[in-house]
Formats: sequence, structure tokens, C-alpha cells
Amino acid sequence: MKSIKVKIPATSANLGPGFDSLGLAIGLYNEIHIKSSKYHSVSIKGEGAQNIRLKKNNMFISIFNDIYKELVGKKDIFRFEFYNNIPFARGLGSSSAVIVSAIASAYEMADVKADKKTILNRALIYEPHPDNIAPAVYGGFVSSVVENGVVYTLKKDLPTDIKAVMIIPNRSMSTVQSRGELSKTFSIQKLVYNVSRASLLSCAFFSENWDILKVASKDCVHQNQRMSIMPELKDAQKISLENGALMSTLSGSGSSFFNLCYEYDAKKLYENLKAAFQDFRVEIFDFDNSGYIIKR
Amino acid sequence: MKSIKVKIPATSANLGPGFDSLGLAIGLYNEIHIKSSKYHSVSIKGEGAQNIRLKKNNMFISIFNDIYKELVGKKDIFRFEFYNNIPFARGLGSSSAVIVSAIASAYEMADVKADKKTILNRALIYEPHPDNIAPAVYGGFVSSVVENGVVYTLKKDLPTDIKAVMIIPNRSMSTVQSRGELSKTFSIQKLVYNVSRASLLSCAFFSENWDILKVASKDCVHQNQRMSIMPELKDAQKISLENGALMSTLSGSGSSFFNLCYEYDAKKLYENLKAAFQDFRVEIFDFDNSGYIIKR
Repeated sequence: MKSIKVKIPATSANLGPGFDSLGLAIGLYNEIHIKSSKYHSVSIKGEGAQNIRLKKNNMFISIFNDIYKELVGKKDIFRFEFYNNIPFARGLGSSSAVIVSAIASAYEMADVKADKKTILNRALIYEPHPDNIAPAVYGGFVSSVVENGVVYTLKKDLPTDIKAVMIIPNRSMSTVQSRGELSKTFSIQKLVYNVSRASLLSCAFFSENWDILKVASKDCVHQNQRMSIMPELKDAQKISLENGALMSTLSGSGSSFFNLCYEYDAKKLYENLKAAFQDFRVEIFDFDNSGYIIKR
Repeated sequence: MKSIKVKIPATSANLGPGFDSLGLAIGLYNEIHIKSSKYHSVSIKGEGAQNIRLKKNNMFISIFNDIYKELVGKKDIFRFEFYNNIPFARGLGSSSAVIVSAIASAYEMADVKADKKTILNRALIYEPHPDNIAPAVYGGFVSSVVENGVVYTLKKDLPTDIKAVMIIPNRSMSTVQSRGELSKTFSIQKLVYNVSRASLLSCAFFSENWDILKVASKDCVHQNQRMSIMPELKDAQKISLENGALMSTLSGSGSSFFNLCYEYDAKKLYENLKAAFQDFRVEIFDFDNSGYIIKR
């Protein structure tokens, strides 16, 4: 009778100038319990619990079954319990969390040892951009490059004296719509704008020089174009930067906003944002440095 | 009777994917001696010694005099002695070395205290790209962003167990010609190619993970276009990567090539390159972690 528990963090990707490249893991988790069973059954608590379709047409179960069958050579029957805390379609990496945790679980239930690198490279088949899946696998701040279908990463653990203050709007911003807003071509000036800032932001995270993030986190490739779909995000960014945020960037392709601040500024920032956006969720999170964790 | 000695390192900029953004300082130095004098006089040893025009029309002296006059309120008369080791027009930051050392010397001779940040921001007026002047000022590996005429930097000291093996061709590649080779616009794919690699390269330098440089140092913006002007550089890169180079990139806008390797591979790499390119200079250098140094 096999049984496992998987914990997987939310992630914030497209970090500032690091379009399709830089992301980090946030201490907000989905948990999935899987056990061998006589009958297939699914229970969903939290996000998605109200959505009947999710029991029948479930991306986690579909990926899990594919990989499991490939590894073991046959299908088996399981009970799946989902405890979902990562909001869907808000730029918090909910799809990447599903993909990574499904693949890692399948290897574990199949008793096939796989290191995190293997799980990451398999995840790339389902999610071609590495910036959510890499921190979902490793935790921390992760810089990723994809070359010939392989992800190359470097990771930095994040300290406890900085926090994430997330603004989570009451509606989504579709990835398709928000990708459609992007320019087709970029001048050398725009390219240098993002190359230089993504580099400086990477150095800032690796050396824990947070005060330079205000300059290093600026972007001219995706953020303004996407924020034009939901104009109140401009206010969210302005209020955040005026109230202690060291950087304030669109999370993934939106609609959430990611703020990084010193621990001692987190409460003030939270309260100011809560007062200004009463319809939006505002939450203070630790960073996650572990990525997915599986327990037997 | 005032007298100073200034030492300034060579630099390698446009580092791989870090066009106009990333650079580092190499342990190859110009030295300039300046003293108050009754008569203006100039002596040049080493690079440029044969060039009579350099005594009359000298960028160092011109910048030095401008800044000195601004700080002191009047002109004074000096003897200048140049001991030049940085080759001209080979992508080793000789102009940036002149600009930075001239400004720093003028402040010192004027007895006006100035931190390195001040010197760097003044240098930006003469050289609008920060990637040579920043490591010339600070030494080490430096990531730079220019915003509203101010340079923002983070620096990493480089350890002694890695070396620079430079290939210095017998002819130059003009910056104007090589800038002319660049594309005018870039697709989002090319932008992500360089943004992701420049970020990973920055993380690699900050965390001293050298083995990932082969992937992280690739570029699709400037290097191949420029190398087409001097095709033997393709061989230089290939031979370098086959003989221990962890990265092998065009230095600045050429014509030199910068190789980074472990100390224990430096001699083999040097010998293979020397055998393949008998007309080119090949040299092993330490990295410089100090930037300009002034002694009274």
C-alpha cells in the first residue's frame, strides 16, 4: 500500500527584466496526497474545489498517469487528494506547480529514483518556459537558460529578512491575451535595457544587495504592455514602491503583483495595499528555498 | 612639488551575452606618472611610443587638463610620463583606461577627494557604455546599468585559480565598423536568448560556478556578426573551447579574444593557441580586483 505526500510552492516568474528567464519560489503551497487504491477517486480542497470539471479533466492526474505508465509499464489505480492554495491563472505558477508535482510524484510512486534536474527537464516538455518550473523544482531565486531542450540553472537561497508581499487581483489576465500585447521586435536599446537590468538583478539576488533592485528590476519588454490590460496595477506598483517595496513587478504574465521588501516593512506595505485595493487579496509570504518536497 | 603615479587595468567588455552591460578587469596595466613642472613635457614608453601625434594630441592630457581646470579654477603645468602596456584598438579597453585614469588623476592632483563612483559617473560623459569604464574603476567582474546618466554597478572579486588567456590579433577591428555589423532589431527569441544567458553568466561569476559558462557565455547579438570581419577568430574560439577555455568570447568589439580557464589549464591553452596563431599575441593574465590605483 504505497502512499506519498507532495508539497509544491507557488512561483513568481518573468521577474522584472528577466522575461522567460528569472523566477523565484514563494512560501504558498499546494499539497497532494496519493495512495494506491482499489478505486480511482479524487478529492479537491481549496482552489478549484467548486469546479466539477477538475475531477474529470485533471492535468495533474493526466501527467501523473502518463509518466507512471511509462516508468512502470502499466497503469495502476490511486486515490488523489488535492489541497490547493495557489490561485489559478493569477501569475503564481499554478500550472507549473501541477506539472512539476505530477512528474515528481509519478517517479516516487513508481519507485524510480530521479534527481531534481531530471524532473525539471521532463517538466520542460509540458511548460516550455523555465522561469516558473525551475523555482518550483529547486526553490529560491533561479536563473535559467534553455539550450537544445535542456534547462541550465543556478539557484540562490533567499534569506528570511526579506518577504514577498503579493497583490492578487480578483480576476485573471490570460497568458494568451497578455502575450499578444508584446512587441514583435525590439531595438538594440531595448535589448540592452533588459540585458543590463536582468544581469544586475541576478547579481543583486546572488549578493543580497536589495537596495539596487529599484533600478535593476525595471523592464521595457513585457510589463507595461501587460499592465495596460488592468490599469489599476499601475497604482499598485506606485503605492508599493512608495511604501517599502524594494521591487514591484508583475508576477508571471499577471494578474498578480510581486513585491519584495525588508521584513520590517512588510506589515506597513501590506496595510497600505489592503486599504487601497479592498477587492484584491494582499498577502505576506516567506520565500521558499526547497522547491517540491515528497514524503512517504 | 606634487607628484603621483596612477595604475589602471585593461578590461574586457561586451562579455558574451552582456552587450554594453558586463565587463571585467585584466591584470595588464598602463601606468602614468604626473608631476608639477616648470615646462609642459610628455614622454611615452610602450604602446604608442612611436606615434609622434600622441604627444601633441593626447586624450589623457586633454581630459586631465579640462577636469583639473574645472576643479582648481586655473591651468597648471605638468610633466606626463606614460608607460603603456594596453594595446590600442584591440578591444582591451585602452580608451576607457585613458579616460578613467585621466579623471582620477585630475582629482588627485587638484587635491579634491572623489570616491570611485564619482570618477565612474564622470567617465560616462566621455564613454557612454559602462562595461569597460566600470571594471577599469573597480576591478573584478562588474555588472552595470545606466539610468538617467548615472551608472549603477555590482562587483565581484575574481579568485586566483582562474586566469585570462587573451588572443591579441596583429590588426584592429574598428568599433565603428563592428557596430555597423549589428542588426537594427531583434526578435523576442533573440532578446530572451541574451537576457537569460547574461543573467546566468552573472550568477555564475557571483557564485564562482565556472563550468556553466560554456552555455551562459553564448551570444546572438554581436559576436558572430563581428567575427565575420575577421574569420580566423572562429578558429580561435573553437581551439580555445577544445583546450580548456570555460568561455571564449570576443573582447569588447574585438579584435582580441577573451578566454577564461582554470589556472591548471592556462599553459596548455596558451601553447595550443600560440602554435595555431603565430602572428597573434597570446598572453596569460591574472584578473585585476582593484581597478585604478593612485599613489602619491
